[in-house]
Amino acid sequence: MARPRKNDHLKQKLLETGMRLLIDNGYHGTGIKQILDAVNVPKGSFYNFFTSKEQFVSEIITYYSTVISDEFSSFLKTFKNESAIITFWLCFQEKVNTSESGACLIGAMASEIAQSSELCRRTLINVEAAWISTLALLLKCSQQQGDVRNDLKAEDLASSFYNHWQGSLLEFQVSNNPDIVLHRLATFVRLLLTEQGHTKMASCSHYFKDNLNV
Amino acid sequence: MARPRKNDHLKQKLLETGMRLLIDNGYHGTGIKQILDAVNVPKGSFYNFFTSKEQFVSEIITYYSTVISDEFSSFLKTFKNESAIITFWLCFQEKVNTSESGACLIGAMASEIAQSSELCRRTLINVEAAWISTLALLLKCSQQQGDVRNDLKAEDLASSFYNHWQGSLLEFQVSNNPDIVLHRLATFVRLLLTEQGHTKMASCSHYFKDNLNV
Repeated sequence: MARPRKNDHLKQKLLETGMRLLIDNGYHGTGIKQILDAVNVPKGSFYNFFTSKEQFVSEIITYYSTVISDEFSSFLKTFKNESAIITFWLCFQEKVNTSESGACLIGAMASEIAQSSELCRRTLINVEAAWISTLALLLKCSQQQGDVRNDLKAEDLASSFYNHWQGSLLEFQVSNNPDIVLHRLATFVRLLLTEQGHTKMASCSHYFKDNLNV
Repeated sequence: MARPRKNDHLKQKLLETGMRLLIDNGYHGTGIKQILDAVNVPKGSFYNFFTSKEQFVSEIITYYSTVISDEFSSFLKTFKNESAIITFWLCFQEKVNTSESGACLIGAMASEIAQSSELCRRTLINVEAAWISTLALLLKCSQQQGDVRNDLKAEDLASSFYNHWQGSLLEFQVSNNPDIVLHRLATFVRLLLTEQGHTKMASCSHYFKDNLNV
């Protein structure tokens, strides 16, 4: 039993170190050797777990998405009795406030390698679809509760929200302004709200109220 | 007089080739040697024009933005008598429809090197500010014409639109769906429109009408 546990631990360590280096240096700026040196394992061990750098990065994308999604899900569970749009907003507020940096591995890999690696492109499609589906569920519920406009499909609003989020993370990379992501997300959410939703949000979140002068 | 013209031509060729290679392979995936081989010039000539790869890429970012901005400006001039929001929409529709690929060098460099190159980060700030200022002018005019909601500042709407555009270009990279950018932009514009603006847009653009079922 000891051997598989050691291997699991090593694989986990490779994924975590790889994830950190990919976020900092990108796909082309990160070499396998650099990762092996950081984890202190020989090349052979790496190829016991992964067939290539491409397959390694594909697994890291899935791993990264699972980590973020787990954080999001456990936060979602604490807001069972709130309205869906308030839950949606507070989850993102928490996520943005606790992020160490504005870098998103999914966005970075989409930009750098989606067009050159079919394997990573397909992985990105899957993890992004899962994210958008979660967002769409919350927005659909908010539409049913009368807080979000219903002249557009929840799935389209979710995709637009997701894209806007990715673009705002890029703006953070350029501006170095840590407040920018939340400010932009507040603007986008304001565009979705009905009058009723607007009143609810203004009463639940000082940030939202102050930032949009409501 | 012959020598400067030759040099100008060579510099232009380096910028254009560098731009193409950066879009395809990213910053870390593009070597100076690769660019020199493609343009067929010796290393020494490169350093007559640029002090480093970083400075070269900074100039390419500015060059790229000028090319796109010139296209946009000349298209804007053809819509003098339209309403601002229709002009805004038709410019983007034209831009998206004539793009060879969904890749944007500004977004790609923001993702890959804004955090590691202060020079490129400052260049990205400048070119993005110029873009957002153009978009904000059109949106402010649309607010004055009563076509765009005025409960949020035109500058904030412009920044959100820009971020949403960058995120939608990333979605195109991943989905390989060439129609996705226009569909997402139509959703975003719909979020900005007043009833009056909505009616105008539905009458001016079949794409807009069909895509949003108005």
